[in-house]
Amino acid sequence: MVTVGIVDTTFARYDMGKIALNTIQELAPHITVIRRTVPGIKDLPVACKILLEEFNCEAVMAIGMPGPKPIDAQCAHQASIGLINCQLMTNKHIIECFVFENEAGSEDELIDICKDRARKHAEHLVRIALNDQEWFTARAGRGYRQGHPDAGPLL
Amino acid sequence: MVTVGIVDTTFARYDMGKIALNTIQELAPHITVIRRTVPGIKDLPVACKILLEEFNCEAVMAIGMPGPKPIDAQCAHQASIGLINCQLMTNKHIIECFVFENEAGSEDELIDICKDRARKHAEHLVRIALNDQEWFTARAGRGYRQGHPDAGPLL
Amino acid sequence: MVTVGIVDTTFARYDMGKIALNTIQELAPHITVIRRTVPGIKDLPVACKILLEEFNCEAVMAIGMPGPKPIDAQCAHQASIGLINCQLMTNKHIIECFVFENEAGSEDELIDICKDRARKHAEHLVRIALNDQEWFTARAGRGYRQGHPDAGPLL
Amino acid sequence: MVTVGIVDTTFARYDMGKIALNTIQELAPHITVIRRTVPGIKDLPVACKILLEEFNCEAVMAIGMPGPKPIDAQCAHQASIGLINCQLMTNKHIIECFVFENEAGSEDELIDICKDRARKHAEHLVRIALNDQEWFTARAGRGYRQGHPDAGPLL
Amino acid sequence: MVTVGIVDTTFARYDMGKIALNTIQELAPHITVIRRTVPGIKDLPVACKILLEEFNCEAVMAIGMPGPKPIDAQCAHQASIGLINCQLMTNKHIIECFVFENEAGSEDELIDICKDRARKHAEHLVRIALNDQEWFTARAGRGYRQGHPDAGPLL
Repeated sequence: MVTVGIVDTTFARYDMGKIALNTIQELAPHITVIRRTVPGIKDLPVACKILLEEFNCEAVMAIGMPGPKPIDAQCAHQASIGLINCQLMTNKHIIECFVFENEAGSEDELIDICKDRARKHAEHLVRIALNDQEWFTARAGRGYRQGHPDAGPLL
Repeated sequence: MVTVGIVDTTFARYDMGKIALNTIQELAPHITVIRRTVPGIKDLPVACKILLEEFNCEAVMAIGMPGPKPIDAQCAHQASIGLINCQLMTNKHIIECFVFENEAGSEDELIDICKDRARKHAEHLVRIALNDQEWFTARAGRGYRQGHPDAGPLL
Repeated sequence: MVTVGIVDTTFARYDMGKIALNTIQELAPHITVIRRTVPGIKDLPVACKILLEEFNCEAVMAIGMPGPKPIDAQCAHQASIGLINCQLMTNKHIIECFVFENEAGSEDELIDICKDRARKHAEHLVRIALNDQEWFTARAGRGYRQGHPDAGPLL
Repeated sequence: MVTVGIVDTTFARYDMGKIALNTIQELAPHITVIRRTVPGIKDLPVACKILLEEFNCEAVMAIGMPGPKPIDAQCAHQASIGLINCQLMTNKHIIECFVFENEAGSEDELIDICKDRARKHAEHLVRIALNDQEWFTARAGRGYRQGHPDAGPLL
Repeated sequence: MVTVGIVDTTFARYDMGKIALNTIQELAPHITVIRRTVPGIKDLPVACKILLEEFNCEAVMAIGMPGPKPIDAQCAHQASIGLINCQLMTNKHIIECFVFENEAGSEDELIDICKDRARKHAEHLVRIALNDQEWFTARAGRGYRQGHPDAGPLL
């Protein structure tokens, strides 16, 4: 039995956790998903670590939505460093899925980014949990993106 | 018996520790609270670690109030990284409650931010210590804020 | 038997992993190479750690291609810190091979940088895995570069 | 018997170590003080760790004086992160006493800052080593400063 | 028998490793020196850790020469953080000897900085390896510099 985790925040303004949950259930209904919610992105690293170490998750997805101010970008930076450290401490992957409020020109566009990024990273989570290395290596160096159109390979 | 910790500073210009203490006692009078005070925000991480490891706290709240200068923001950044590392080392949550002196237009507004943020994060501390995951997940992705009005969910 | 690892990303827009793989096979056909691909550069540190610790690699090459935006530079910074921490945790070398999309004036130039940097760092990987310290020390302080012309020694 | 440590640098332009030493001896003559000097601020973290772990110090004071250039601020930032990590690794406090050469308008003012900050942080060191928590908590949230006039509490 | 390490890079444009080596042999011919060379400054931390842990060095000198671009400063920052972490993990000193290509107005001046800084830091390495604490403390707070004229003490 394979278990994965999803951790999201009450700070985020869109429920990417639900999108991720639905995507995992569509792609791999046999995977067990544990969902946790924390106040903000700085609370994500330890919540992920607990799921990886105490709940035996193969991998975890950390979902956050930093606000538009410089202090929000700073918090996201701190959280990202913590998520990387957490992975190094556990030898397990955390898929970081952050949508920055200021990376879109409108709320509609922001929602589109949230949906696309959450779906694609949820697939990454599944592929990692199932150790599907062929899928990843077939896509190496080809400019894939999440939330925005693929950049594609250099020609 | 559940124990939580509060650590604040002599540098801060408002006694958020007392507000947090009162909030915890209102919400969960059966919880034991240990309070510590340190000189400045960079002293918070180790003080939290001692409470988590040597005083058996379930979770801790780290309260600080960085001054208005760039060096103060830098110190807050260092402290935040330390607080995240501390959580990763202990597998326990630290609720960071920082109020930046320059995030308000007046001293009155600054006090209002202090009160609101300390109260709401004290409730987070209680909910985490009591493992009330349903409360958090019911609020996932809905744009909650502390110290400022909620941003609310994207529509 | 000597084993090395190569980890690259689906985010990168050029297949530097293949260039590195070919270079290693030309220079040292007796070395076994394990290749892994992850979504983005922040996923590199833990992937390297798994190869170093669980697959017994002597050394690993971490290949990434940050996009042109400030957030991409930030992600690369976080990844680099993680790669250094990973090395300190394992006492093994990781050769970081990052090409920044904005370090070239054209796509053609960018491809040239990718090819040159991947080839030269793949040779570094081989020399480190084979413990060829004389080769490195003979080149100490002589201004070697990867992806751009050598700066050469000060005269 | 209580032992504390003082670590300062040859880079600093004022002998704050001596001021700290004198302050400790006035306030708590029964405390044993071990003094170490290192070249620059980046050498402070490991020197503190050695005192805390191998010389059984209860707490240590790390004294530095970054120069006026951006690179000096960067070094101070790195040192501060290291000092916080050191505390997390040892569960003991390090009182950081840094005076930035550019925080004063004249050399006389700079000397005044050095004296005041070293004295007050030496008292912090003593209070922490003696576990005088009441003294700290009585001062919580009241805007104390070292090297500059107290900001005082918000009214 | 006392052993120290020197680690430098092929990226650097001046052979500071040789200067350091010569200085150590003049000052303390009975000290054994192990020299290693790595591609760039980000490779220094793990190379130092291996020398400290697996080759029993008392202390190590890490020599690097970041280029003139912002990305080079960023790499130096990452390396410095890694060097400090390495010291905290080993309880041994690493003397960082970095010369930034843009800290001089001409190549001649740059060479002078390299020579002076490498010589003085090599002496620091020797004094630390021989535990000559009196020499350091006699110089505490007196504004010593390496590569540039001493700033001297505040009067």
